[in-house]
Amino acid sequence: MPGFDQTLRPFLWRAERLYPDREIVTRTPEGRRRSTYAEYGDRVRRLASALDVAGVDRGDRVGTVCWNHDRHFETYFAVPNAGAQLHTINPLLPDEHIQYIVGNADDRLLFVDPSLAETVASAYDADAFASVERIVVVGDALPDVDLPDAITYEKFLRGHTADYEWPELPGDAPAGMCYTSGTTGNPKGVEYTQQMLWGHTMAMLTPQALGIEDSDVVMPVVPMFHVNAWGFPFAATAAGAKHVYPGPSPDPADLAALIEEEGVTITAGVPTVWLGLLEHLEDRDADLSTLERVVVGGAAVPEIVIRRFDDMGIEVLHAWGMTETSPVGTVARRKHGLEAADYDEQVTKRAKQGLIVPGLEFRVLKDGDEPIEWDGEDFGELLIRGPWVTDEYYGRPDANESDFEGSWLRTGDIVTVDPDGYVEIVDRADDVIKSGGEWISSQELENAVMAHEAVDEAAVIGVPHERWGERPVAFVVPAEGADRESLPDGIEALLREDYPDWWLPDAVEFIDAVPKTATGKFSKKDLREEFADEPLIEGQTPDARE
Amino acid sequence: MPGFDQTLRPFLWRAERLYPDREIVTRTPEGRRRSTYAEYGDRVRRLASALDVAGVDRGDRVGTVCWNHDRHFETYFAVPNAGAQLHTINPLLPDEHIQYIVGNADDRLLFVDPSLAETVASAYDADAFASVERIVVVGDALPDVDLPDAITYEKFLRGHTADYEWPELPGDAPAGMCYTSGTTGNPKGVEYTQQMLWGHTMAMLTPQALGIEDSDVVMPVVPMFHVNAWGFPFAATAAGAKHVYPGPSPDPADLAALIEEEGVTITAGVPTVWLGLLEHLEDRDADLSTLERVVVGGAAVPEIVIRRFDDMGIEVLHAWGMTETSPVGTVARRKHGLEAADYDEQVTKRAKQGLIVPGLEFRVLKDGDEPIEWDGEDFGELLIRGPWVTDEYYGRPDANESDFEGSWLRTGDIVTVDPDGYVEIVDRADDVIKSGGEWISSQELENAVMAHEAVDEAAVIGVPHERWGERPVAFVVPAEGADRESLPDGIEALLREDYPDWWLPDAVEFIDAVPKTATGKFSKKDLREEFADEPLIEGQTPDARE
Repeated sequence: MPGFDQTLRPFLWRAERLYPDREIVTRTPEGRRRSTYAEYGDRVRRLASALDVAGVDRGDRVGTVCWNHDRHFETYFAVPNAGAQLHTINPLLPDEHIQYIVGNADDRLLFVDPSLAETVASAYDADAFASVERIVVVGDALPDVDLPDAITYEKFLRGHTADYEWPELPGDAPAGMCYTSGTTGNPKGVEYTQQMLWGHTMAMLTPQALGIEDSDVVMPVVPMFHVNAWGFPFAATAAGAKHVYPGPSPDPADLAALIEEEGVTITAGVPTVWLGLLEHLEDRDADLSTLERVVVGGAAVPEIVIRRFDDMGIEVLHAWGMTETSPVGTVARRKHGLEAADYDEQVTKRAKQGLIVPGLEFRVLKDGDEPIEWDGEDFGELLIRGPWVTDEYYGRPDANESDFEGSWLRTGDIVTVDPDGYVEIVDRADDVIKSGGEWISSQELENAVMAHEAVDEAAVIGVPHERWGERPVAFVVPAEGADRESLPDGIEALLREDYPDWWLPDAVEFIDAVPKTATGKFSKKDLREEFADEPLIEGQTPDARE
Repeated sequence: MPGFDQTLRPFLWRAERLYPDREIVTRTPEGRRRSTYAEYGDRVRRLASALDVAGVDRGDRVGTVCWNHDRHFETYFAVPNAGAQLHTINPLLPDEHIQYIVGNADDRLLFVDPSLAETVASAYDADAFASVERIVVVGDALPDVDLPDAITYEKFLRGHTADYEWPELPGDAPAGMCYTSGTTGNPKGVEYTQQMLWGHTMAMLTPQALGIEDSDVVMPVVPMFHVNAWGFPFAATAAGAKHVYPGPSPDPADLAALIEEEGVTITAGVPTVWLGLLEHLEDRDADLSTLERVVVGGAAVPEIVIRRFDDMGIEVLHAWGMTETSPVGTVARRKHGLEAADYDEQVTKRAKQGLIVPGLEFRVLKDGDEPIEWDGEDFGELLIRGPWVTDEYYGRPDANESDFEGSWLRTGDIVTVDPDGYVEIVDRADDVIKSGGEWISSQELENAVMAHEAVDEAAVIGVPHERWGERPVAFVVPAEGADRESLPDGIEALLREDYPDWWLPDAVEFIDAVPKTATGKFSKKDLREEFADEPLIEGQTPDARE
């Protein structure tokens, strides 16, 4: 059939030939390291030669345990273009997860930052790491920790020339891999083919997503081990843009300096990064006038972040995605016509997860298979599919059965869709409360409870019920000095203002703190387990959840 | 493998759901016809139902002989999404070409505009049209010409509801087809798969190509039978933009009125359309302030067009492509950094064919397989490949052998590439003169000859030569009252200012007119044939060209 295969190789070729002098800048402990696409292309080919000589074959996996820097970026094009599979590993995972991941992926080489050598050494286990033939330390010297078969990156490249001929790869060649942590069980591997990464890259360039141009200066703060830094290194290259990598653990002052001194126009990261930057800017002068767009993902963006950046003439683009969606699925850009709306309404829309990107499809289903109304209130589970959405987990038939419905990925997110098509996550499928055949959003309820001035924190869970299936119970951390006697009634009165009777929690329980996950999110799973055997409400039945 | 197939269907779904009220406007003899994506989606599904009932199966071809209007646009999504193949037919071709095309494509249905019914009736031949079961006249009444098995479009749709479920198609399903006329022999069919059209659509949206957004109002003046109107109907839909179709034979006043009254932001067509519009605007007031970009293709854009539109604050985007490239291959956008250059230099670059679009690759080879220098002077034949470039002609092994080199398409264009990567066509491979192992651009030479004030027209061809292989001969139409005695010396003196000795024509022949093709281009093939047996220069050998 006509039409040449979709692979990443032409993006690199185009950047090298059209933009040989455009820069790739990295913040290092010794200052900024600068190179160009011309130099980058040569180093990428040297790395590909070295991988070849090291015996890395088609389809072999190469792992990285690295922060955001130019060397890590070299693996982004060298490994997949050589026909192998780039497996980025999250160093923040517990040792046993890293062991599982390396073993499950059968990584043959590991590229490890010196500052993460200790992490890898701590996880190192001869059995779990049996597939690993060599550890390449991405620094000038080997670190003082016990890593078998270690070699420095420059030594690994030494003697290899840039005279490397890229192979012609099929579009369905595996190119990338990233593991996602579920709430239970082992992490699940998501594979990205050349074609998936190609489609995702093209989509990111479109104005419907992020509209990246050759005049852009792109700084991904999101770690390069999180779904290919959300695809920014590939998209910036396809556009011929300048790259800025913030290196290990940048603080707000580092980010402000990079934006100001490198002329960053677009950057991306989780909300806490931007809250930190905004706080930093409160009592400091920094010229961020080049910055045009801040892409926020990984967690919902607080409206205040949108408003504060708007005041500075900087557009926040709230984006949603998953490891399974390569990751960009929706972007809360200003839709045509929205600029005429009241500013508060604009902010409300832009704080949602956003509009589906061209090329993807979604459905929102409740009660099994009934589509919801797009009225901003009706809600159900989001299912998504498309050229850069996976339809399976690597070697996990168990997870495939529950997480996919034919070609559709079950996202596990409970969402509304408003008449303009903006998707908003209102709960997780594991947390939503199913009462009398209708759904109650636990997140919405707990946000409403937390609006009470005498409440510090609150979590709402569904408790099994003989008649209704489930009923909500609120777990509340009262503020210091709160009147615990009157608080349940006060909460009920507050909720009654906005919610129907059947949404009101059957009980309010006081606790000292809401249990949290490793990343600081409310762990309602832990809360459910803690109270599984306690009688909380009338009509309660034993908890059948796993 | 993960990653759902790339097809056009999600683009339509997204436009219907996110932009139900955005308009599709058509200029008709009775005034403007207006509809919305919501209405459009319903009509497209009704048309798909009707195709189903008419027995159109997967892979069947459906031909259209239509101008630019909403009904033609309905076939753009209905036919490929239903799993059939949309075959747009150029009504300007001679009868025997239309007969060949319809027979070669095995079209089962033909959609024909009333104003083109006579064209089809004239070409109609029971044998050549044997595959055609029905002719659907895209109008309210059947025209007064003899078309067997004709039915009106609305009658064809009647009784069919919008309750049609789209099939799930593979990315390699044939979706479109267009024939290209070579200089010799029968037209050659180019097939577009779903995936090719998907990739081309995504590329058109990117700022590296045209950067189409939901706020855009898109008016394709380029006929919808020319490579899917250069892909604009698909890209505008993927973006959620408003469509404006100018209907049959719009004149400059019609175009100006559509731009002004519909708020057109981007339009596209061949240079003559824009020269006509600019002339029309010379002594008329028209408010074209909404217009942002004019895409010019099909032939090289004269610099004056760029300059005149620049004066009006409108950006000309010169684009190059072929039927074989779906069609967009290069766009002469302002590259990052070019805005700092001198204005004349900018215009010179923007008048070239432009920069390769992300996702494609090209090579320029001379003397068989030697790559040229990117210095803006060295030249060779352009080869191109990519996800929306074909690597075969439909059922034409003879043409496949000469026009492709593995996965690369030989474009037949002789080009230079400047250090910034801008590609410029300097000749056709059939016309370039190979003298002593070096190439001479016939187009460049004839442009230089035509710069002489006493020359009206000139064409330069290569004449077979015993020693040099070929030598240039200039055929000149002298201006009225020119001194024919001194003209050859005058031409030689002019050429010597810019060109080396060996570029100078061995002879200057006077003719009354340069022979032209049906579309008004110089036909050097006819010129070569006319003079094949005449002795023109010393050392001449018999012409071995076909």
